[in-house]
Amino acid sequence: MDKSTQYKIFNDPIHGFITVPKGIILDLIDHPYIQRLRRIKQMGLGYLVFPAAEHSRFSHALGAMELAQQTLNNLREKDTTISPAEYEGTLIAVLLHDVGHGPLSHTLEFNLIEDFHHEKMTLAVMRHLNEEMDGALDTAIKIFTDQYPKKPFLNQLISSQLDIDRLDYLKRDSAFTSVYEGSVGIERILKTMRVHKGNIVIEKKGIYAIENYILARRLMYMQVYLHKTVLSADILIRNIFQRVRELIQSGTDLYHASPALQFFLEEQPSAKKEIPKKVLKKYLRLDDNDVFQSIKYWQYEDDPVLANLCKRFQSRSLFRTTFLDNKPSDELTEKVKVKTQRSLKDRGLPHDETSSKYYYNFAVSYSEAYRYENEGIWILEEKDKAVEFSKAADTQNIIALTEPVVKPYVVHLKDIEI
Amino acid sequence: MDKSTQYKIFNDPIHGFITVPKGIILDLIDHPYIQRLRRIKQMGLGYLVFPAAEHSRFSHALGAMELAQQTLNNLREKDTTISPAEYEGTLIAVLLHDVGHGPLSHTLEFNLIEDFHHEKMTLAVMRHLNEEMDGALDTAIKIFTDQYPKKPFLNQLISSQLDIDRLDYLKRDSAFTSVYEGSVGIERILKTMRVHKGNIVIEKKGIYAIENYILARRLMYMQVYLHKTVLSADILIRNIFQRVRELIQSGTDLYHASPALQFFLEEQPSAKKEIPKKVLKKYLRLDDNDVFQSIKYWQYEDDPVLANLCKRFQSRSLFRTTFLDNKPSDELTEKVKVKTQRSLKDRGLPHDETSSKYYYNFAVSYSEAYRYENEGIWILEEKDKAVEFSKAADTQNIIALTEPVVKPYVVHLKDIEI
Amino acid sequence: MDKSTQYKIFNDPIHGFITVPKGIILDLIDHPYIQRLRRIKQMGLGYLVFPAAEHSRFSHALGAMELAQQTLNNLREKDTTISPAEYEGTLIAVLLHDVGHGPLSHTLEFNLIEDFHHEKMTLAVMRHLNEEMDGALDTAIKIFTDQYPKKPFLNQLISSQLDIDRLDYLKRDSAFTSVYEGSVGIERILKTMRVHKGNIVIEKKGIYAIENYILARRLMYMQVYLHKTVLSADILIRNIFQRVRELIQSGTDLYHASPALQFFLEEQPSAKKEIPKKVLKKYLRLDDNDVFQSIKYWQYEDDPVLANLCKRFQSRSLFRTTFLDNKPSDELTEKVKVKTQRSLKDRGLPHDETSSKYYYNFAVSYSEAYRYENEGIWILEEKDKAVEFSKAADTQNIIALTEPVVKPYVVHLKDIEI
Amino acid sequence: MDKSTQYKIFNDPIHGFITVPKGIILDLIDHPYIQRLRRIKQMGLGYLVFPAAEHSRFSHALGAMELAQQTLNNLREKDTTISPAEYEGTLIAVLLHDVGHGPLSHTLEFNLIEDFHHEKMTLAVMRHLNEEMDGALDTAIKIFTDQYPKKPFLNQLISSQLDIDRLDYLKRDSAFTSVYEGSVGIERILKTMRVHKGNIVIEKKGIYAIENYILARRLMYMQVYLHKTVLSADILIRNIFQRVRELIQSGTDLYHASPALQFFLEEQPSAKKEIPKKVLKKYLRLDDNDVFQSIKYWQYEDDPVLANLCKRFQSRSLFRTTFLDNKPSDELTEKVKVKTQRSLKDRGLPHDETSSKYYYNFAVSYSEAYRYENEGIWILEEKDKAVEFSKAADTQNIIALTEPVVKPYVVHLKDIEI
Repeated sequence: MDKSTQYKIFNDPIHGFITVPKGIILDLIDHPYIQRLRRIKQMGLGYLVFPAAEHSRFSHALGAMELAQQTLNNLREKDTTISPAEYEGTLIAVLLHDVGHGPLSHTLEFNLIEDFHHEKMTLAVMRHLNEEMDGALDTAIKIFTDQYPKKPFLNQLISSQLDIDRLDYLKRDSAFTSVYEGSVGIERILKTMRVHKGNIVIEKKGIYAIENYILARRLMYMQVYLHKTVLSADILIRNIFQRVRELIQSGTDLYHASPALQFFLEEQPSAKKEIPKKVLKKYLRLDDNDVFQSIKYWQYEDDPVLANLCKRFQSRSLFRTTFLDNKPSDELTEKVKVKTQRSLKDRGLPHDETSSKYYYNFAVSYSEAYRYENEGIWILEEKDKAVEFSKAADTQNIIALTEPVVKPYVVHLKDIEI
Repeated sequence: MDKSTQYKIFNDPIHGFITVPKGIILDLIDHPYIQRLRRIKQMGLGYLVFPAAEHSRFSHALGAMELAQQTLNNLREKDTTISPAEYEGTLIAVLLHDVGHGPLSHTLEFNLIEDFHHEKMTLAVMRHLNEEMDGALDTAIKIFTDQYPKKPFLNQLISSQLDIDRLDYLKRDSAFTSVYEGSVGIERILKTMRVHKGNIVIEKKGIYAIENYILARRLMYMQVYLHKTVLSADILIRNIFQRVRELIQSGTDLYHASPALQFFLEEQPSAKKEIPKKVLKKYLRLDDNDVFQSIKYWQYEDDPVLANLCKRFQSRSLFRTTFLDNKPSDELTEKVKVKTQRSLKDRGLPHDETSSKYYYNFAVSYSEAYRYENEGIWILEEKDKAVEFSKAADTQNIIALTEPVVKPYVVHLKDIEI
Repeated sequence: MDKSTQYKIFNDPIHGFITVPKGIILDLIDHPYIQRLRRIKQMGLGYLVFPAAEHSRFSHALGAMELAQQTLNNLREKDTTISPAEYEGTLIAVLLHDVGHGPLSHTLEFNLIEDFHHEKMTLAVMRHLNEEMDGALDTAIKIFTDQYPKKPFLNQLISSQLDIDRLDYLKRDSAFTSVYEGSVGIERILKTMRVHKGNIVIEKKGIYAIENYILARRLMYMQVYLHKTVLSADILIRNIFQRVRELIQSGTDLYHASPALQFFLEEQPSAKKEIPKKVLKKYLRLDDNDVFQSIKYWQYEDDPVLANLCKRFQSRSLFRTTFLDNKPSDELTEKVKVKTQRSLKDRGLPHDETSSKYYYNFAVSYSEAYRYENEGIWILEEKDKAVEFSKAADTQNIIALTEPVVKPYVVHLKDIEI
Repeated sequence: MDKSTQYKIFNDPIHGFITVPKGIILDLIDHPYIQRLRRIKQMGLGYLVFPAAEHSRFSHALGAMELAQQTLNNLREKDTTISPAEYEGTLIAVLLHDVGHGPLSHTLEFNLIEDFHHEKMTLAVMRHLNEEMDGALDTAIKIFTDQYPKKPFLNQLISSQLDIDRLDYLKRDSAFTSVYEGSVGIERILKTMRVHKGNIVIEKKGIYAIENYILARRLMYMQVYLHKTVLSADILIRNIFQRVRELIQSGTDLYHASPALQFFLEEQPSAKKEIPKKVLKKYLRLDDNDVFQSIKYWQYEDDPVLANLCKRFQSRSLFRTTFLDNKPSDELTEKVKVKTQRSLKDRGLPHDETSSKYYYNFAVSYSEAYRYENEGIWILEEKDKAVEFSKAADTQNIIALTEPVVKPYVVHLKDIEI
């Protein structure tokens, strides 16, 4: 049978062509829950610093699915048996791996739902879809939850130190931000990947591609994901939402809010136990637009704090981020508070304790390029001997570079000296 | 003085670095009216076919401004005098050349404001900003409106058959859609551009770069801008808005609409005369999010036609486009109507005359890669002789390719045979 | 069986990875006759204008073989049966399609062997290799010579208006010359290629990729292959070799010549009939280095004409090319001769009739981007109807562009006005 | 004056356009000594592993000169005064920095001239050219030899841990080898470079670009420059030349050798003292072609050892490289010798002590990505405080990665087990 009629092809600047198998994969892609990812930016507020980084979780999900196909095809060439059901299940799991993300995911997660974890939400959505599709996602869910003991490597493709998610987003984010240093040679990584005793390993000749991958990830954290301006914009958004919630709790009627967002702001559901289907469905109506629309119209709210914070966001008058050498002292905390209040006062803005606390924050940034304890990337050094990357030849020194980087910082008004 | 402190640098996947002069240019970029362009996609609904074509008018505006700088610097190298005020004015005009665009511009323009032209709106916004900035945009406005007789070439950089707008969007759109055939060698075009008797001309050695540019433009129209699915999605959106307006006029209360959008749907202002400042300000609150949010929540409206159309958009169940060899006959028009009504009836949807007309449309697509009458691109064939491109050596035959392409088509339900 | 052990992988800037099947393909690649192509530049003297165009026929042959694999795999996906022997035969034919080329092929061909055609020579080399390898090239030779009536499309991949040779060299040459306009989206061409009634056709959705391919080819001729300086360098080399032959015929002993080159200069074999094995073997010792070494040392010959011509080549003091509107008149021919002699005299160089004729030439350049009579590229317009490209929809006008371009020119000393 | 007429533009796949100032720079480029670099491959025998790495030292020299212009222009923008003479001198020094290289430089250097250093030879060539050009290279030579105390940064651009040579060759070599991991974001490095107290420093925001640069260099050594097959091909060539010299010394007449090469093989000049002009001129006739031509024809020599070694090179039957954990023991040395002799005997080849020693070698590979003692790259951490890179914030751990990598290895016949 003519296989080419079984595919639909999309163009992609990262992978050239993306081949989408017709049937359940294409049905899922057209499903409103996945189409919703078109309205959630992959890099959250990163576009404020890198203007072209406007790409969505949807194009990332498609790209990851394409890489999954390439990977599985390569593994089959190397004699690993993968059944059609396992193949499809893996593609589905990769395609949906981020479907639980909400608007401005990392920024807002905990503000909308208590005890939120996007993996948990992803699983809830997958189960919801599985019901709707009469069990068609059974295998995908098993692989996603690592309940597929026959072939642990399938789950490793979904979630590990070298999963397909990371390969696509590093390549994609570095391309759209035009941060050259974050670029990764994924072609070589895929070519040197194989299955050894049920697990993903990298052939020896791919070791430098792995070194490059880990260091690229480190550099993307340093230059992009934890960029000062991104950190400060994140805080601004969070403060806006805290203020709104405070207003709502005190009974204020908002000039404008989207129905779904209003639900979460008022109800404050929790994800501690299983997420009720009603909450899940509301959640799946949310996307970045709910946030951006709200902020746009909240500029015209009566509350001067909320209006001011929203105007700041609309005109890119963000706060400044200053990194600290140590955890902030009580003295510093007090100093920042006092200076903030004085600055607000000078500009005729509310400067009491409750209002001023929205204009500064202390926080900590954290990044970890590679974690080797209990996980790690394994190199096939000899025919039958796999070694964790940090213990492989020529890499003894690289581990120093992969220690988590932890940096306290303070976000504050620009006219304040720290 | 250290010039490097006078710039802010942004990363861009198309041009590498974008150098933004501090002062008025940076102030304008941070202005909410320009920041608003971040929320309007450059390619409208093109992302439905080309998933990564999610880039905004904002990143295009920045990119065009960067190209303007490179162009002006090159012209200065070639002995053309450009004063600092002219330089700045040109950058401003290029940066703002699309500031009047509304949400899903080409799709919705006429549905929100009668007699709308985005150039007219752009000018209105520029004048509004000029007032706010005490005349700082005077030169920019003169150049933009071709009221700068000393140096006609400056206006040609803003608006002509070879303007900077086109150079950036062709390059950018072909990169993000990954449509290789639309890619243009803008570097060579800029290098061979010069001023001759006050007008922009291309040196002879750049003639093939121009040929390539015109043909790339033609191919982008054929493959991207007038892609069947894009045409059908445009129609769907337009029909949604016509239905909404109909509902509003009949007094229906919407479940949800954004404040700014509601204003336009209810008031239906006209741009025949000068646009009142109140209308302008409302207009500048609109962006794609108003549209996408509305459609998302209109799925839950009581009106079955509106709800159905909006659900179609959310789940990518678009109409089909069929190109016609000739203008549609009355017979065909009737046939499509009857078949549509039958199909709607079969699915238990309203199928009366008024409802069914939202499920099909007859229209005409039009493209023109190059217009040489009264305009054209001029080639400097000899030291003192410029010739319009189609009359230059080696290009006699190319004009055949640049004739406008006009294609009638019908958009209809997928289960209908035409 | 683990297929990945059956391949050797090479890196390539054009295709990323090149996968070479072990066995006869790899044996052929390592054979001295194919390794010899490493020492013959793909673009002859093109590097004199495009400094990085130093790539060899060897890397082009490898690249073409990689494309052949991708093409055959795609065709198999589309239900075309290709046996392992046919697959291998096609790869061999593609790999060897240029093996008969000599040093500076197009420049020198006729100066070394009378009645030379590189296709004829390629066939002779293939037969020679086939003998050495006990008939392993039987199928390849049948395909190459179009003696494989079962599957004409295989020969079309080797030699037609859309053969793999062209796809690789256009992409490769445009990349190494950095002539953007010659770049071709081969990925899309390969994806839309299929077999229809035994012949290669392009699916309708690939039609614009074909338009782009033809125009890119046209632009490469105009900007690169027939570049004025390349034409003039070609003439210089030819004149050097004519002078040398003249000297040898008059009994002059050369200061230095490579053994193989000397053989051809002295013997002047002909390829009218079958090429004798002795001549073939000598020919296969020749590469660009024989030419460049000779010219380098011929600078120190006693003959002032030869020494001067060779010094010109070494120091890039090339002649000038002037295009003519018509065939040169007798008057012009005479004028150029007289002026050349005067110029040589002024510089104290031999300026008699015999000597001066090496300092100018009249010639004609010829290019044809696409030939549709009897050949052509076929578009699959409907399920069962293939149409030659120039007759397909949307392309009616393109044929004008593909008419052969014929330009007479004269090559002459730079101090002469034409 | 129209500056654009003062330049000639070349196309380059790495930098896009290369702008060559007319006058002395263009004169130098056309000079036979620099044109000679077209015939010396930048990566020596690297093309045997990376088939497209066929680029010459000439295109690298041009590329480096282009980068030098960009660098100097950037520094001027940042308020560093650079006079026209200094500007031109720096360009010349960069353009000529490798002009002293001989054929297969690193492979053959010591086999042709005793006590050879290519920097010494480069200086000799520059002085020779300076004489010929009446002192036009005075400033260039001062900068090249670090005798320009006013502006030490100019010499640092020629030769330091972050010189322009490295920036161009890393970018170029990684592109032509298609080794993604070696790619470097030179644009960002150039943008963040400035002069501080007379020395080149990098602004703080460029620190990750430097980290990436050092690690890319490390990976290029590991994957490319010290690739096993390249090491083994180097040894083969060296052994060929040692055998030839041995033959010549014993009075054997060669079937073929180029005049210049023969001179060096017979005379064995030394570079201990100043290089005599006669030797220099002979040296400047040598290029890769002398080597490749010789090896090609030495296949037909009577000496079976020489013929066999040369046939191996022509048919890519190279030796194998095995890395050793430690310095080779006497036992291993003996074992390899005995096995080699047995293998040669089995194939009917001369296997005595003198002949067999050309079939194996023990050697040591060495690489150092970054040297910080006495040199290093300096980061401008605060307005007035530059810190050596390894001592800057966020980089404490990187130094581990830059320790020299020293690996002993043995090169031997493929049928021998080590």
